[in-house]
Amino acid sequence: MEVSNKYITIKTQIERAPKETDFELKTAAITLSIEPGSNDAIDAFGVAKVVVSGNPEFQKDELVVGSISWGEYKLVKGGDRFRKLDPMGFPLSYHAGMLGYSGLAAYSGFFEICKPRKGEKVFVSGASGSVGNLVGQFAKLLGCYLVGSVGNNEKVAILKKKLGFDDAFNYKEEPDYKAALKRYFPDGIDIYFDNVGGEMLEAAVANMNLLGRVAACGAIAEYTDATKRAAPSMLDVVYKRIKIQGFLISDHMNLYADFISMASEHLLNGKIQPLEDISNGVESIPSAFIELFQGDNIGKKIVRIAED
Amino acid sequence: MEVSNKYITIKTQIERAPKETDFELKTAAITLSIEPGSNDAIDAFGVAKVVVSGNPEFQKDELVVGSISWGEYKLVKGGDRFRKLDPMGFPLSYHAGMLGYSGLAAYSGFFEICKPRKGEKVFVSGASGSVGNLVGQFAKLLGCYLVGSVGNNEKVAILKKKLGFDDAFNYKEEPDYKAALKRYFPDGIDIYFDNVGGEMLEAAVANMNLLGRVAACGAIAEYTDATKRAAPSMLDVVYKRIKIQGFLISDHMNLYADFISMASEHLLNGKIQPLEDISNGVESIPSAFIELFQGDNIGKKIVRIAED
Repeated sequence: MEVSNKYITIKTQIERAPKETDFELKTAAITLSIEPGSNDAIDAFGVAKVVVSGNPEFQKDELVVGSISWGEYKLVKGGDRFRKLDPMGFPLSYHAGMLGYSGLAAYSGFFEICKPRKGEKVFVSGASGSVGNLVGQFAKLLGCYLVGSVGNNEKVAILKKKLGFDDAFNYKEEPDYKAALKRYFPDGIDIYFDNVGGEMLEAAVANMNLLGRVAACGAIAEYTDATKRAAPSMLDVVYKRIKIQGFLISDHMNLYADFISMASEHLLNGKIQPLEDISNGVESIPSAFIELFQGDNIGKKIVRIAED
Repeated sequence: MEVSNKYITIKTQIERAPKETDFELKTAAITLSIEPGSNDAIDAFGVAKVVVSGNPEFQKDELVVGSISWGEYKLVKGGDRFRKLDPMGFPLSYHAGMLGYSGLAAYSGFFEICKPRKGEKVFVSGASGSVGNLVGQFAKLLGCYLVGSVGNNEKVAILKKKLGFDDAFNYKEEPDYKAALKRYFPDGIDIYFDNVGGEMLEAAVANMNLLGRVAACGAIAEYTDATKRAAPSMLDVVYKRIKIQGFLISDHMNLYADFISMASEHLLNGKIQPLEDISNGVESIPSAFIELFQGDNIGKKIVRIAED
């Protein structure tokens, strides 16, 4: 079986922030045989449907999640990196985002790394992102006081009106992050879920309470500019006994079943709101990817390659 | 009962590094009645002998440990901050240092915060200090690879010859800490016990392995100069899932009995070596204190006010 496959490749080595011109759309015939050939497409987490299979564990038309590519079709050897997907009545996009790795990152980072308690004061940066918005929603479900930082006022409004944040602010309008956090947290911060690194981390540590916890999930401020590194006061870290911990979901796959059970229940009863930002077609992948670095997306950025 | 008491006071507010002229030696008659008067002496952890007591739980000539003062005598109300001391045959100085809070800091920070395993690669800064030298000795007892950083070559020799460190270096002779640690840890650092903060922390994080742990015990580089703050890469923290955790012994008093049992056993069987730096007399307290900031002491700095 041969199909024409559109896919995205990297044209040049990407230095710091990606640009559209770093990528190239290619079209190539691809033979869907049992043995995969090699191609130069880029891997990404997603949901796919089996078109043809030589593996008896996977049948035609079954849905799977796992490492697919930035393209319409992918040839897979073996198939051990995929698991079958029961969509449980949810749109497939949920399974690529809030019920996928973004959701697991929010769940494991918040519950395992931060060990939150009801009533604690929680600060989330990048709070309208795929992980941040869910951390916030988990914090509210637990009964925490919650403030988020984002990069524009539309996002501020969504956090407060749609997602139940107690407060939110646009960091681009705050000349002094430390003073801003002092204002939003007059009683200090117990938990900081950090998606940005840089000066916001420094300001959060300065405003942190005794035994505060920082889950280091991302450092977008540092991806594109190493000079924006954070220099939190280590005296604060020692005397306030602060824990700063990086994590990746690969260490927390054991929590997946608990997470899916909790998140799907609250999606059904309406206590968790989906927040998705969907583009269409392979052609839109590079711009969708670049948006992540510019902070243009609101919620989980999804590219729909084909209809559900 | 009235005695003449020599004690040390603070003359001026101390800005950053203390100087001898910040302190003053005073002599005053002190009436050792049951009700304490107030004085302006400075509190410090130490071992003392009861001279007179109105508390039936404490008898004359009993030894106690707790918050004594920078002076020859102290009037204590109640006495609940003291516990009786059984010296177990050890010199009293041990109980003010390696069997006291310094030892507990080393024990709790290393075992509870770092959770070390045999064969792991351990880096200790301030490695000849009261806490650092014991962390190193615990690490060797467990079978770790161990390197320490110190501020002069005499200390390097002591760590390697007396305390069994696998290697040690004088940070003042290293223009590039990151390169130095790369040389001493070609396979990376699993555990960093941080007594100094600043650039050494940044370099240790850069050389850290996956799932590395940093116990933040002190930040001497930052006490006296806030511009020397560390700016570790948060991308390293996230991708290598590094934990940086501050701690104080007050959170770990529950470990005291285990610690004393372990440390006293190894002092007796010679597997832990005492490392003490003893001055004599109340007059020597300010200079002893200042030495801590200059890194002049080797091992636990003790001031002996009276003979055992």
